[in-house]
Amino acid sequence: MSLDGFVAGPNPSEDDALGKGGMQLHEWIIKLAAWRKPHGEEGGEANESTAVVEESQENVGAVVMGRGMFGGGSGPWGDDPWNGWWGDEPPFHMPVFVLTHHPREPLVLGETTFTFHTDGIESALGQATEAAAGKDVALGGGADVAQQYLAAGLIDEMQLNVVPVLLGGGTRLLDNLAEAEVRLEPIRVVETPDVTHLKYRVVR
Amino acid sequence: MSLDGFVAGPNPSEDDALGKGGMQLHEWIIKLAAWRKPHGEEGGEANESTAVVEESQENVGAVVMGRGMFGGGSGPWGDDPWNGWWGDEPPFHMPVFVLTHHPREPLVLGETTFTFHTDGIESALGQATEAAAGKDVALGGGADVAQQYLAAGLIDEMQLNVVPVLLGGGTRLLDNLAEAEVRLEPIRVVETPDVTHLKYRVVR
Repeated sequence: MSLDGFVAGPNPSEDDALGKGGMQLHEWIIKLAAWRKPHGEEGGEANESTAVVEESQENVGAVVMGRGMFGGGSGPWGDDPWNGWWGDEPPFHMPVFVLTHHPREPLVLGETTFTFHTDGIESALGQATEAAAGKDVALGGGADVAQQYLAAGLIDEMQLNVVPVLLGGGTRLLDNLAEAEVRLEPIRVVETPDVTHLKYRVVR
Repeated sequence: MSLDGFVAGPNPSEDDALGKGGMQLHEWIIKLAAWRKPHGEEGGEANESTAVVEESQENVGAVVMGRGMFGGGSGPWGDDPWNGWWGDEPPFHMPVFVLTHHPREPLVLGETTFTFHTDGIESALGQATEAAAGKDVALGGGADVAQQYLAAGLIDEMQLNVVPVLLGGGTRLLDNLAEAEVRLEPIRVVETPDVTHLKYRVVR
């Protein structure tokens, strides 16, 4: 997120899904080989953030995300629904659980199977936990889904990648949590010139 | 500030100037001997934050703050104005430049002289820089004053003490800066169980 707390900038559009200035939040990771390889991109560098990205990928057995992160849109999926942002070989290579209000048949793309869940966040997490078979479940996003899981006390750890820019508007990650009484403990910090990685344990 | 970006909580009042939950943002510093001593309090501990507090105090020759941080209120000061929050021996022991829209005679309390400046932030900073005689000028706060100086490109370094709580509302530090195009570079991080100290250089 930006130093002022945004995970997307103001005025997002179809051409600019991350909003004004939002791409700056991802520059640190897009240049890493550790990110490029699972995304089917060549090259890239290794730096202090590499271990953070590798750590976030290791021991993950399933992913939960909101419909916005899968592919955006709202309402019923229709007869010939879009397959989302992720292309023919999505970078997940594991079961992905998409939260939605509208039922849809499972979608297999490469080594990734997307299933669509309309029974709420607890049910989706329960099924993802089962699919992960002892490994961790990663919460992909977006912000609204993260807020729902945080408020429900269903997050164990939270990694914030704080980029030293101010976006001044957009989508806040830690919003709508006034009543949630979330308690956190810092676990570790990794500092780089591009981004500061803050990791927290959520205290029950 | 809190992890969600607030330097004071919601619903501040005379009895509770920091707003709901706002006191949590200061617990880490109040227990430090390095803070207690200049504030005339005995005891206290030393921990990883001690060096951060000492660093923020060393080589400072003058302080700039807003009227709210001096003593709150608004409008003309009146014939018998209040002397602010800081008691008979304020912890500054140096010239303090208070930004206000209303003129007031200088106020000497112990080793601290407060002067009151109505000519705007640049003029006050210029006079503070002269008074500091080669040392640094510290910006005391509050958030609105910090925002004005940041937007004007008059801040060299910024220290954020990020406490792992979510206040969910209140006064945001890095607000109203959408048009400011502030560019920052991380300088260093100090990590403790209570607070994460992030220091940035503001790039011109």
